[in-house]
Amino acid sequence: MVTVSGLDGVVAAETLLSLVDGQKGHLVIRGHWVKDLAVRFRYEDVVYLLWNGTLPSPEQSGEFRSRLADRRTISDELKAFIRAIPKNTSPMSALRTCVSALGSDAMTYPPNQEQAMEILAKAPTMIAYFYRLQQGKSGIDPNPELSHAENFLYMLFGEKPLPAHGRALDAYFILTCEHGMNASTFSARVTVSTRSDLVSALTTAIGTMKGPLHGGAPSEVTEMLEKIGSLDRAESYIRGELEKGERLMGFGHRVYKTQDPRAAALREVATELAQEDPLFELAVEVEKIALRLLAEFKPGRQLNVNVEYYAAVVLRAVKLPPALYTPAFSLSRIAGWSANVLEQVPINRLIRPNSKYIGEMPSS
Amino acid sequence: MVTVSGLDGVVAAETLLSLVDGQKGHLVIRGHWVKDLAVRFRYEDVVYLLWNGTLPSPEQSGEFRSRLADRRTISDELKAFIRAIPKNTSPMSALRTCVSALGSDAMTYPPNQEQAMEILAKAPTMIAYFYRLQQGKSGIDPNPELSHAENFLYMLFGEKPLPAHGRALDAYFILTCEHGMNASTFSARVTVSTRSDLVSALTTAIGTMKGPLHGGAPSEVTEMLEKIGSLDRAESYIRGELEKGERLMGFGHRVYKTQDPRAAALREVATELAQEDPLFELAVEVEKIALRLLAEFKPGRQLNVNVEYYAAVVLRAVKLPPALYTPAFSLSRIAGWSANVLEQVPINRLIRPNSKYIGEMPSS
Repeated sequence: MVTVSGLDGVVAAETLLSLVDGQKGHLVIRGHWVKDLAVRFRYEDVVYLLWNGTLPSPEQSGEFRSRLADRRTISDELKAFIRAIPKNTSPMSALRTCVSALGSDAMTYPPNQEQAMEILAKAPTMIAYFYRLQQGKSGIDPNPELSHAENFLYMLFGEKPLPAHGRALDAYFILTCEHGMNASTFSARVTVSTRSDLVSALTTAIGTMKGPLHGGAPSEVTEMLEKIGSLDRAESYIRGELEKGERLMGFGHRVYKTQDPRAAALREVATELAQEDPLFELAVEVEKIALRLLAEFKPGRQLNVNVEYYAAVVLRAVKLPPALYTPAFSLSRIAGWSANVLEQVPINRLIRPNSKYIGEMPSS
Repeated sequence: MVTVSGLDGVVAAETLLSLVDGQKGHLVIRGHWVKDLAVRFRYEDVVYLLWNGTLPSPEQSGEFRSRLADRRTISDELKAFIRAIPKNTSPMSALRTCVSALGSDAMTYPPNQEQAMEILAKAPTMIAYFYRLQQGKSGIDPNPELSHAENFLYMLFGEKPLPAHGRALDAYFILTCEHGMNASTFSARVTVSTRSDLVSALTTAIGTMKGPLHGGAPSEVTEMLEKIGSLDRAESYIRGELEKGERLMGFGHRVYKTQDPRAAALREVATELAQEDPLFELAVEVEKIALRLLAEFKPGRQLNVNVEYYAAVVLRAVKLPPALYTPAFSLSRIAGWSANVLEQVPINRLIRPNSKYIGEMPSS
């Protein structure tokens, strides 16, 4: 048997949830182009779609939103828990610990939609609370009148976000909520395949997304753009990086060999925010220059802009602190992870590959 | 491409750590039969072997033990954290949350042996502290004079364990510390393959082991033996279960099609404790009867006693509360998980299989 260290080409599940076509640059979620969803729907509706298979009626949508809003508040016990998390903890590690702490006796196997809703609703509250404490500020309780995306910004900043900011974060959440058999989704499926529980599976997924090969380092994209600063310096900066053999932040993807459809949609979302953030125009021009230079330096590699690049631009425009870029990605993906866990459970088959021992045998 | 929902037969890594030969009933750890290790060495020495590739000299062994002992004490900050974990949390969930909380800024990628030692040393202290609090008792600080296994019992019960108990738990730790590409080990490798960190990988592994298809339900073995109660009731009880189509607790394994070498070694360990626990003799007889009846009811299935069966008997004999059986399995396996993570890191390849979309395509 051949060792497949990245499991490339191994099909680990059949799924009704999403299709990632890396050659065509397509992302389909439950029968819909992801871009259509981002333009026409709200994140809560797409979560409903992921979990139920169909888009909600207006009535179902309203009920789903209010059930979600009802679950956002965290108890004093959970607040005390968050205050006790060691302060020298990164927000991604804190999010992993917070979600793990939701694993009380009410969260036993088998996973169900009610459990998923509980975690999806509370995770933003917990991470916003932790982040404000870490910044020496007091926590802010959720506002039931706001959408999932708006409310996250509200709990971070203490005021209702601009409508354009709410819409932009909402579109970001939709565009990143589900993406085939990526590493975090797969790890969550492995965890629950032992008949462990949803909280364990989501804790696994967050820990897996924490790695820059998956969750990326989106803050490095904005750092790069800030370092470039103005258009006249872009070509020389990028050329310099490529000559040094550095990887260009925000370009290239394991699966997409053409334009990442999420990046294209996020570029459009960012356009609407362009007047608020001068970095946007720079980002668009840097993309063009980078593509030209990548074709020169790495011919045939088909390196394109990835979701991380415009995600960073959008998240910066809505004023999210860079330390929360990857946590925001996780908050969004809780929807897709949960859907995958719910899909994995009835398969009821332990995921357990083999290894090949290449060490010594005992002498006797 | 064919969908392999359990990844059966897929080789995900080459490894120097262990060989599980399910046909021959062999378990080799770094060139040694696991039973030889259990008879001749202490758990700390086997951890050293796993992490370094060779057994330690007496000097290295002493130094390794004292480094481990130095790291067992947990800070007041960590104690406050453990007190803040919601009380209606199972010990396995609490262990997952505790290990996640070790993910401070000192625990960044890449993983190293010092980080692994920190977690291996502190995990028993944390779970013993949590368990005592949950029982309404006060926590007990570690005793640097005791071995890893003895100290765990000491922190649970507040007195130095009988030598036979320390030796038995030590042997249990050795026999369960590493076991090829099992589900939790694999999930830890997936997590770290994104260049996430050791704490994330071990948090993943604990969440994966929590599922009864992997971590088992060892307390159900002792419950079964207690329900049987005496030898004259064994045959009718087991026959009744099999006639009802129930799975027999402690029999059958995904990989071993013959005797699980760990079960055989643990049976010997338990023999030494037999006079202290009348359940032991019953367990040996129940095994014989169960094997005979399994051959009758499920011919050709090659169902044998698994590690869980005699693990439960040994853990009961050393007075471990049943709620801590699976956590004890995790404490032991931290050694193997860490070794696998350290082996995965230089491979530096994202583990990302594919899925096959079987849903609808958008109409336009």
